[in-house]
Amino acid sequence: MGGQFISFEGGEGSGKSTQILLLAEKLRANGVEVVVTREPGGSEGAEQLRHLLLTGDIAAWSPISEALLFAAGRSDHLEKLIRPSLDNNIWVLCDRFLDSTRAYQGVAGKVPQEFIEMIEKHVVADSLPNKTYILDLDPQVGLARANARIAEFSKNTAAISEDRFENMRLQFHKDLRNCYIDIAKNESVRCTIINAERDIATIHGEIWQDVQKILTKMDG
Amino acid sequence: MGGQFISFEGGEGSGKSTQILLLAEKLRANGVEVVVTREPGGSEGAEQLRHLLLTGDIAAWSPISEALLFAAGRSDHLEKLIRPSLDNNIWVLCDRFLDSTRAYQGVAGKVPQEFIEMIEKHVVADSLPNKTYILDLDPQVGLARANARIAEFSKNTAAISEDRFENMRLQFHKDLRNCYIDIAKNESVRCTIINAERDIATIHGEIWQDVQKILTKMDG
Repeated sequence: MGGQFISFEGGEGSGKSTQILLLAEKLRANGVEVVVTREPGGSEGAEQLRHLLLTGDIAAWSPISEALLFAAGRSDHLEKLIRPSLDNNIWVLCDRFLDSTRAYQGVAGKVPQEFIEMIEKHVVADSLPNKTYILDLDPQVGLARANARIAEFSKNTAAISEDRFENMRLQFHKDLRNCYIDIAKNESVRCTIINAERDIATIHGEIWQDVQKILTKMDG
Repeated sequence: MGGQFISFEGGEGSGKSTQILLLAEKLRANGVEVVVTREPGGSEGAEQLRHLLLTGDIAAWSPISEALLFAAGRSDHLEKLIRPSLDNNIWVLCDRFLDSTRAYQGVAGKVPQEFIEMIEKHVVADSLPNKTYILDLDPQVGLARANARIAEFSKNTAAISEDRFENMRLQFHKDLRNCYIDIAKNESVRCTIINAERDIATIHGEIWQDVQKILTKMDG
């Protein structure tokens, strides 16, 4: 059956990174080899693009340039890390994948749908995630969490978040949320919406229950 | 009539840079405002991508990742430099543009035609060059010239050419040449093939004669 490719999606402060780490730990405890990765980034070339994308002026790249840079990074990430891992029976847990492009560039950046689909067709091709968990919560709750996190970092290290998307407006995050909900409706087998307003352990429990179904299928 | 957009294409050692500088000089002497630029590069963001593309291992980026990076750079270049210049009646002379993508990634890299066309449609849109001069010469002559140039640089500064494409094989350059010839056949109004095996002044004279037609039309 090979490795499984699981992506996590959701707005700022939805708890993706935490849930990925918890799931990776549980999978490893169950004898599954796991690689944890993220987008933009995940491979050497793609991390260089991440740096170009997420630092600097908010208006440095137009939405269409941005979509192309994300696609170039994704292409590299798939070729260098994701596909080779899956081929070696290693599971891949990825923080953001193609649904982030659909949401961030498609809806918010107004990049033509036809263009995004064409990139998906040639870059992602048949490497769609086997499963995508969409961590869903009220954008106001998510933004408050994200801001609290930034404040925490700033207090200790005077570092600021590199993620310039975090500075964007509430309406933007409402649009993102609606886009994710639409994706989940259209691809209900691949995508599962997880209520991310609950506590960490409860959310993890729900995800783990679902992942166990995949494990059971693999054993069978 | 606005500024005119003129691109120069051709293999290694075809003399593009020299011809661009000569034409820029002549145009300026005739009262035309000119900006000289190049691809990959030409804008701040695109120059950063140029650095990622042309340095490092020859196999660092796959053909499809490469095509996306070139497209992102072109998008930025068009938005930040080319379109604003043309809007301000400034002529743009560009060393390589979309025909290089068709030739280098399309033919040599085997990136699907459909994919390249879709990128062109959304990135270049209606900003096709008004005129493209394809400097054509026997690949063996061009490669010998390019190698002599590298040797010249190495002697003085121990620098090596950043252009990793220059290391590729002769067959590749023959394919490139055929691709450029096909483009010129298919778009015979925009593209003019210039025999680049002749001396610099003769080539410049032929290009200048052709450009004067555009100037005459503008005066009329």
